[in-house]
Amino acid sequence: ADPAAGRQKAGLCATCHGALGMGQTPDAPHLAGQPEIYLSAQLKAFRSGARRHEVMNVMAKPLSDADIADLAAWYASLKIDVVRPPE
Amino acid sequence: ADPAAGRQKAGLCATCHGALGMGQTPDAPHLAGQPEIYLSAQLKAFRSGARRHEVMNVMAKPLSDADIADLAAWYASLKIDVVRPPE
Repeated sequence: ADPAAGRQKAGLCATCHGALGMGQTPDAPHLAGQPEIYLSAQLKAFRSGARRHEVMNVMAKPLSDADIADLAAWYASLKIDVVRPPE
Repeated sequence: ADPAAGRQKAGLCATCHGALGMGQTPDAPHLAGQPEIYLSAQLKAFRSGARRHEVMNVMAKPLSDADIADLAAWYASLKIDVVRPPE
């Protein structure tokens, strides 16, 4: 899995999930910093249809296992932090 | 929806998703800062079984709509930031 390759492949993803994996719309989750295993499992579930989402089922359909590994590596490489925990 | 009530109700969630919504295991996504609409949609999908996950289907089953609204408000209230964007 190659994060740099994943970044190259993530151009379309950025429309909803942001250039650095921060979701841009209310139903697009943030992907930055998510566990790599979680991300690849979700992309495979969208690809197979096991997890349903009108857009994501279409987006994931053409992805190879290598594409998914690269994309998951890319988003997992973006570290996040909780910046404002409520008191 | 009441974030403070959600925090109270989130005790069990923290086992996998962390006290501040940062996942503790490779297949538990970070919930901190996710869009409220996304979080409540996913909890409802886990409750109905539309989204499948062995643990989450059981955890979400007893939740009321008010519980889900409170939990989503709590995790959405935790702001996150990308702290290390790759060069």
